[in-house]
Amino acid sequence: MRTIKSLDIQDARTLIAGARQKAAEIGVPMCIAITDEGGNLVAFERMDGGKVTSITIAIDKSFTASGAKKATHEYGTASQPGAPAYGIAAAIGGRLMVVGGGLPVIFEEEVIGGIGVSSGTPDQDRAVAQAGIDAFLAAVAI
Amino acid sequence: MRTIKSLDIQDARTLIAGARQKAAEIGVPMCIAITDEGGNLVAFERMDGGKVTSITIAIDKSFTASGAKKATHEYGTASQPGAPAYGIAAAIGGRLMVVGGGLPVIFEEEVIGGIGVSSGTPDQDRAVAQAGIDAFLAAVAI
Amino acid sequence: MRTIKSLDIQDARTLIAGARQKAAEIGVPMCIAITDEGGNLVAFERMDGGKVTSITIAIDKSFTASGAKKATHEYGTASQPGAPAYGIAAAIGGRLMVVGGGLPVIFEEEVIGGIGVSSGTPDQDRAVAQAGIDAFLAAVAI
Amino acid sequence: MRTIKSLDIQDARTLIAGARQKAAEIGVPMCIAITDEGGNLVAFERMDGGKVTSITIAIDKSFTASGAKKATHEYGTASQPGAPAYGIAAAIGGRLMVVGGGLPVIFEEEVIGGIGVSSGTPDQDRAVAQAGIDAFLAAVAI
Repeated sequence: MRTIKSLDIQDARTLIAGARQKAAEIGVPMCIAITDEGGNLVAFERMDGGKVTSITIAIDKSFTASGAKKATHEYGTASQPGAPAYGIAAAIGGRLMVVGGGLPVIFEEEVIGGIGVSSGTPDQDRAVAQAGIDAFLAAVAI
Repeated sequence: MRTIKSLDIQDARTLIAGARQKAAEIGVPMCIAITDEGGNLVAFERMDGGKVTSITIAIDKSFTASGAKKATHEYGTASQPGAPAYGIAAAIGGRLMVVGGGLPVIFEEEVIGGIGVSSGTPDQDRAVAQAGIDAFLAAVAI
Repeated sequence: MRTIKSLDIQDARTLIAGARQKAAEIGVPMCIAITDEGGNLVAFERMDGGKVTSITIAIDKSFTASGAKKATHEYGTASQPGAPAYGIAAAIGGRLMVVGGGLPVIFEEEVIGGIGVSSGTPDQDRAVAQAGIDAFLAAVAI
Repeated sequence: MRTIKSLDIQDARTLIAGARQKAAEIGVPMCIAITDEGGNLVAFERMDGGKVTSITIAIDKSFTASGAKKATHEYGTASQPGAPAYGIAAAIGGRLMVVGGGLPVIFEEEVIGGIGVSSGTPDQDRAVAQAGIDAFLAAVAI
C-alpha cells in the first residue's frame, strides 16, 4: 500500500488566493484550477473577465502538472518540432498541456498536486501560478 | 443586443459557502459547482471526502440547470420511460443531467446561473444546492 | 494536507490473481482492472477469451467503485426508472457504471481503490471482483 | 478467412516483466501497456511512481504500434512540419502517438501486438519497450 500526501480544500484555497492576488496586481483576470496528487480537480475560480476557453485549459494545465509531475512549460520546450516529445501536445485527447501556466505543487520533494492558470500570456499564467505556490509554501512553513 | 445578468465570482463564493455550510450540517462532504448564465464554470470546490466521480457530475448538473433553465430533478421526471423527454439523459455526451442536485439561480425572474451538487443522495444534493441559493438570495436582498 | 492510503502495484497484482483464480474456477475468462484511490488505473489484465468490449467496461467499473466509494451494483438499484438516481448511468461520458462488477477496496474503513470485472454476467463479474478483494484482504491480514 | 497470430496474456506478462526489469535498472518507474494484434489492451501495469498522465499515453503508444504496425518514433520523424505525415499526431482524438516508446511486437515477420511505455524521456521509454520485446523473443525462442 502507498501512503500519499495530497492537497486538501484549504490548501487549494490558499493557492487560489495567492494566484488571484498576483493576477490582480498585473491586471489580468485569470482562470485558476487546483488538482490533487491524482490529477483530480479540488477547486477552481474564474475571476470576472477570465476567459471561457481558459476554463478547460486551466484545469488541464493543473492536471498535467500534477499527473506528469512537471511544469507544463517544460513540455513546451521538449515538444517543439524536432525535439523528442514532439506531438505530445495532442495526447490524452488534448488534455496534456505543453503551454506554460501549469506547475506541480511540491512538498518535501513529493508532488502533492498542481496549479493551472490561464487567460493571460503563458508567461503571465506561469507567474500567477508561481504566486499561488509561493503563498502555499509560506502558509505551510508557519 | 441583449443585456444579460449573470453570476460573478463573488456571487459564486456566496453560493458555495451556503451550500458548504449545509453539507457540513448533514455530514456529507460535497462537490459544489457554480456556472454562469452561459453554462460556463465560475467556481468549484470539492470538500475533503467529496467523491472523485462527483467532480464532473456536479459541474454537469450546474451546466444543465443554467443552460436548460430548469432543475435537474424536473428532467428526472420528464425523462422516465414512456415520458416525453425519455432518452435526454444521454444527450450532450451525457452532460445533460436528470438526477436531482442541479438548480437554476433565478433573480428577478431571470436565470442568471446554476448550482450543481453531488456526492450524497439526490435529495441531499438538492437540499445542499438549495441552501446555496438561499444564501445567495439573502445576500442580494441586503 | 490530506494523507491518503492507496493501492500499489503489488496490491493490484494480488487483487488480479484472486479474481483470475475465481474466473478460472467458474470458467469465464474476464477483463480485470484495478484503480487507485483517485480512480486512476494501476493494473489490468484481459484473460485469453475476455471480451474486447469489456476492456473499457472493467476499467470504468473500477473507476466508479473507487471514485464514488461504492459498489456499481448499488447504483444499478438506485438508477432504475422511478428511482432517485435514474439517469446517472450516462454521466461522465458514460464512465459512471451502474452494472454489477465494480467494488471499492476498503482498508481500515477507507476506500483505497477499486476493482472492476467484466465479460460474464453481472453476478459472475461481481463474484470474481469479490474474490479479488478476498485475496487482497487475506494478504494484508498476514 | 484469416488466421491471425496475436499476443496472449502470458506473452503480455513476459513483455511487461522484461520492460519492468529495465525500468528498475534505469531507475524510472513506468507505465507499461500491451495490446494485441487488433490494438486492444491485453495487460497494463503502472509501477509505483509511474505518472498518471502516462496511463493513457502508454496505452495509446501500444495501440499505435500494433495498429499501425510501426514504431511510434518513426511517426515522430514523418510527422514533423513539412513532412508527409504532418498533423497525424492529432488523429483518432489524439490516440495516434508519434512520441517514442511504442513498438510493434513482430514474430515471423508479422506484427502480433504492441508495447507502449511512458513516464521517462522518449529515449528511456523506447529502451524499456525494447527490453520487453527482447524478453518476449528470448522466451519464444526456447
